[in-house]
Amino acid sequence: MKLCLIGNRGGHDKHVWDALPHLPHVQVVGIASGAPEDDVTPWLRRCDALGFTPQVFTDYRQMLDRLRPDIVVVCGPFELHAEMTAEALRRGSHVFCEKPVALTFEQLAQVKTAYTASPGRHLATIMNLRYDPAFYTAWRAVRDGAIGTVRLINTQKSYRLGRRDAYYRNRATYGGTIPWVGVHAFDWIYWYSGAAFTSVYATHSMQYNQGNGDLEVSALCHFTLTGEIFASASLDYLRPATAPTHGDDRVRVMGTDGALEVRGGQAYLINAATEGEVVLPVACDRQIFQDFVEHIEGETTALLTADDVFAVTAACLLARQSADEGRVIEFERSNV
Amino acid sequence: MKLCLIGNRGGHDKHVWDALPHLPHVQVVGIASGAPEDDVTPWLRRCDALGFTPQVFTDYRQMLDRLRPDIVVVCGPFELHAEMTAEALRRGSHVFCEKPVALTFEQLAQVKTAYTASPGRHLATIMNLRYDPAFYTAWRAVRDGAIGTVRLINTQKSYRLGRRDAYYRNRATYGGTIPWVGVHAFDWIYWYSGAAFTSVYATHSMQYNQGNGDLEVSALCHFTLTGEIFASASLDYLRPATAPTHGDDRVRVMGTDGALEVRGGQAYLINAATEGEVVLPVACDRQIFQDFVEHIEGETTALLTADDVFAVTAACLLARQSADEGRVIEFERSNV
Repeated sequence: MKLCLIGNRGGHDKHVWDALPHLPHVQVVGIASGAPEDDVTPWLRRCDALGFTPQVFTDYRQMLDRLRPDIVVVCGPFELHAEMTAEALRRGSHVFCEKPVALTFEQLAQVKTAYTASPGRHLATIMNLRYDPAFYTAWRAVRDGAIGTVRLINTQKSYRLGRRDAYYRNRATYGGTIPWVGVHAFDWIYWYSGAAFTSVYATHSMQYNQGNGDLEVSALCHFTLTGEIFASASLDYLRPATAPTHGDDRVRVMGTDGALEVRGGQAYLINAATEGEVVLPVACDRQIFQDFVEHIEGETTALLTADDVFAVTAACLLARQSADEGRVIEFERSNV
Repeated sequence: MKLCLIGNRGGHDKHVWDALPHLPHVQVVGIASGAPEDDVTPWLRRCDALGFTPQVFTDYRQMLDRLRPDIVVVCGPFELHAEMTAEALRRGSHVFCEKPVALTFEQLAQVKTAYTASPGRHLATIMNLRYDPAFYTAWRAVRDGAIGTVRLINTQKSYRLGRRDAYYRNRATYGGTIPWVGVHAFDWIYWYSGAAFTSVYATHSMQYNQGNGDLEVSALCHFTLTGEIFASASLDYLRPATAPTHGDDRVRVMGTDGALEVRGGQAYLINAATEGEVVLPVACDRQIFQDFVEHIEGETTALLTADDVFAVTAACLLARQSADEGRVIEFERSNV
């Protein structure tokens, strides 16, 4: 299978490089910079180490037209994810895209249209945390009925701010903290609940962002899902530099028959079968890009489908709109 | 000082009994049942053990008129807190009331009017968690600048449902889970932030309440405070019977210079002065009812003032209204 890569922003392409040694039939044949200022040298070094000799393009469309790749990995500028994804889908490629796939409602519609017009093509975003051992183990426990019916979910993404590239400082190129950071939390909510989003209320603040332009340093989102399931997402870049890890990712899922929590890379369960709280052994036997490739080949059903991508991206954009406009937004009325 | 008690619902009167041996100048002189069906025998046993021989009344107003107590402890039916508090204030007593002090806006107005008309009288509710060693220690750390300016607060109250008295099953006598359980969480938010509530959005659900009438088993509240401080409160009765404790109380406070968390009775801090996360030694040298009495005597300023009670009770009632009506509510416009 021929693989092309576009752009190298976001940092999640590492999941592709990690998988390639285990996918000998997938060959990197082309690389295109996503923006003139972005340097693809690190990717060329990666290719060299793996024995690939890709062609390098400055125009990604030209690359797609010439090389006709089976798979395109999209890690270009965030505001071009949708366009690049749509262009690749239209040419018949499967697309593995940095999240979120769209920063605006128009971009999301563009991707949906291209996807619908390309039957049999697989589209996924790099929602790597579904494959994290603790979050995956917790999801399996929920799916297997360990906590009964899900009623309440609390999620948390807390990052160190650190030094960030200039494109994080501008809504047009960053998209906002709710889409960029929140997407993972919203995906947990959607994935663990197995329900559909019905409404969202959110707030976000740029205060104390240490000169980072538009970047929101704190945000809080409140979702309702079908069946009166409620879910919170607390998002921030306030984690101190001295914290033991970059991120502090958490999920707490309360069900009718138990409580499940992921915190510090561990999964904790309380239900009728446990004495007090037990620590679950955590593991994930799937790797995100291998899962993507095997899904294309019909060998498995990937954890993440295009419908999931569309639902969670809509949640990102509607939550951001809620925060911008200071009002509750109903998903059904939004027609996203 | 003469002390009278009205009613024995809620379970928080224990803080009064715990303190009395250390307050030899405070004498229980009268006890009135809050409702005909409530049995004051347990309180008479307590009095006996402490050497008090109180008069017992069926009409609490008669008790107030006859005994003219300095202090009245109000633990009557929840829907009578406000009336009993107002009656005692009007007669010149200081009032120590089970929380929340009011279940409706009208009741809250009644208490405010009585308080304003009784200058020099002290009013507090039994917000015992302010005096919990971990929560108190964390508050002192925030107040002392350990995390800089507060930006984001996440709170959690999670209880076992267990078997509850019939009055929990009716909104009119219970008030709802947002006021009854949420009051503690809202108080943490108000207390730790040092800011004023500006708006709230909340949701609550009676689904899966195991035949408990109106009782909401899950609720989620989203507050904004002055300065774009955001705060969540996750409330539930979903904690499994096998959980190691009845409640799972938590607060996480993120500031511009640090992160502070209370969980499992411990307080955790990360800031520029810590290497990774440190566990704070927790302690509280104040007891809630002693603090109340010493405040009356002018020996200290109690942790909780009547203004705090009014602000947090308003938060309870407006959050519940938001959940009932499905809309964001602005505090300023509500005139509560």
